[in-house]
Amino acid sequence: MAEYVNVAVDAMGGDNAPGAIIKGSIEAINEDKRVKVFLVGREPVIREELTKYTYNADQLEVVHAEEVIDTAEPPVNAIRKKKESSIVKAMYMVKGGTCDAFVSAGSTGAVLVGGQLIVGRIKGVERPPLAPLIPTEKGVALLVDCGANVDARASHLVQFAKMGSIYMENVIGIPNPRVGILNIGAEEEKGNALVKETFPLLKECTDINFIGSVEARDVPSGAADVIVCEAFAGNVLLKTFEGVASTLLKTVKKGMMTSLRSKIGALLVKPALKQTLKAFDVEEHGGAPMLGLNGLVVKSHGSSSSKEIKNSILQCVAFKEQKINEKIKEKINLEG
Amino acid sequence: MAEYVNVAVDAMGGDNAPGAIIKGSIEAINEDKRVKVFLVGREPVIREELTKYTYNADQLEVVHAEEVIDTAEPPVNAIRKKKESSIVKAMYMVKGGTCDAFVSAGSTGAVLVGGQLIVGRIKGVERPPLAPLIPTEKGVALLVDCGANVDARASHLVQFAKMGSIYMENVIGIPNPRVGILNIGAEEEKGNALVKETFPLLKECTDINFIGSVEARDVPSGAADVIVCEAFAGNVLLKTFEGVASTLLKTVKKGMMTSLRSKIGALLVKPALKQTLKAFDVEEHGGAPMLGLNGLVVKSHGSSSSKEIKNSILQCVAFKEQKINEKIKEKINLEG
Repeated sequence: MAEYVNVAVDAMGGDNAPGAIIKGSIEAINEDKRVKVFLVGREPVIREELTKYTYNADQLEVVHAEEVIDTAEPPVNAIRKKKESSIVKAMYMVKGGTCDAFVSAGSTGAVLVGGQLIVGRIKGVERPPLAPLIPTEKGVALLVDCGANVDARASHLVQFAKMGSIYMENVIGIPNPRVGILNIGAEEEKGNALVKETFPLLKECTDINFIGSVEARDVPSGAADVIVCEAFAGNVLLKTFEGVASTLLKTVKKGMMTSLRSKIGALLVKPALKQTLKAFDVEEHGGAPMLGLNGLVVKSHGSSSSKEIKNSILQCVAFKEQKINEKIKEKINLEG
Repeated sequence: MAEYVNVAVDAMGGDNAPGAIIKGSIEAINEDKRVKVFLVGREPVIREELTKYTYNADQLEVVHAEEVIDTAEPPVNAIRKKKESSIVKAMYMVKGGTCDAFVSAGSTGAVLVGGQLIVGRIKGVERPPLAPLIPTEKGVALLVDCGANVDARASHLVQFAKMGSIYMENVIGIPNPRVGILNIGAEEEKGNALVKETFPLLKECTDINFIGSVEARDVPSGAADVIVCEAFAGNVLLKTFEGVASTLLKTVKKGMMTSLRSKIGALLVKPALKQTLKAFDVEEHGGAPMLGLNGLVVKSHGSSSSKEIKNSILQCVAFKEQKINEKIKEKINLEG
């Protein structure tokens, strides 16, 4: 039998931990025989949850971690001091090679800091970005960076473009992905100082398919496959996306419940609507990979359901099998 | 009879000019007897359009302007060279006092540059921001700045907060509006360098109701009444908002049309849904005022329909009657 893709999972992280995390892990190993999950967290709690499920025991291990990092804790401090936390222990499993990847729905700050300090950057990578997939009319787009490196420099954005292209081409399967820089207008002279400095550098890159500026308005309709941006702007885009989608769907549902007539109509449209809106469900795409680390770290939403956790784990298979990190190493070293 | 609120309207600006612009202008004067519109643009074209409507002739004047500024033209150049354009002529009418306000759906860049160079800033105002109203679950929120001043400084953001508060309190009627700074996390230590510098300055302001950081995710649900941000991030928020809303509503409609069953359901939910979604219609709120100028400049969407133009014009009445600029002058001078 081939080697497993070994994924450490933070059993204690997220609003729905440990229930949804363990459920999602079981669903992942039941769906894909290539995956082995290491559930990291308080062993007694995990063991008790596990009694609810049937699964192939070879595909699962429990690793005890006494401490839990809270989302409110200052991340650098937490990573340095809580050596027995699920996040720190799992990160060391990736660093040491026991695991290929780590999935967490816990503290974003701690995951980002731990990724940099413990797992460590690929040589030559200046800043590892957080790169979620966001749903579009045409499929998905990769947003790099959405929160890891505020106040980034132009050279960082160029690396984001290259790493993002590798990811979209090899994990998502989009040949020659279109790379756009997030901007406040379509013209080349538009933008802030960072965009104006980065634009010509991206234009010079022969190894990516740079298509120029992309306005936030055109992201949902699929104007680019890889959207390069500084983390503050990327985070605003991502969070606005999620906030508007959730508020609007709530408004649509409320609208359908205002009269008897509309309630009957709602029953009739529901199945068709559910199917169409599936494409706009962020949980379908799993969490956001942090690119450019010596191993894969995936940050799932704090509110992750078992479905999102499952998809975050399954994402690690393609990442390993397509040798994304080897491809990043090669491309970054060519530059330097 | 009391004095009119005199509004210059760019008859030539926007995707639907001059038809929708003139229609919206007529609707505005027919709805509010306090308004007088000065249609600025090519007189023969305007006169011909006007033959379609009946209106009180006292409330309308046509001002000939031979040139039109195209959205693709570099704005500074266009404002300097095209003295006979509708935008430049209308701006001078505001500067000279013939008009209280100017509404345009034309080139955003030209409107912003013209506002600064021709109409001019209120003494003490460092940067005049563009401040659109965005729909929320609770009503509306004001986003300052959404595109006028990229790479702004902390002192600019503090003025945005003050001017935005005055606008929301007096034009929209929200007492003691909650002011939030757009951030990538709720905690005070989160953010980029600009946010970290601005946060304590806003905390010190005794004349605004500062509630701290607001994440983009919480803007649509109405977490703050005034959202202060640097223009690049604000533009990304605004455009993502519009793009997601439009793509999602298109997807909902498409979903309703996939089967006979869902089509029947769609007919039944339509009236109720339309009513609820009205609150999320950007056109309901008119264009974005540029705050801090010696007169009012309102930038309407390039794709403005007659409804948005009408609402942009009517917005000028409250702005003048509530003496917004006098209040801004007073507050800014108190500081200095």
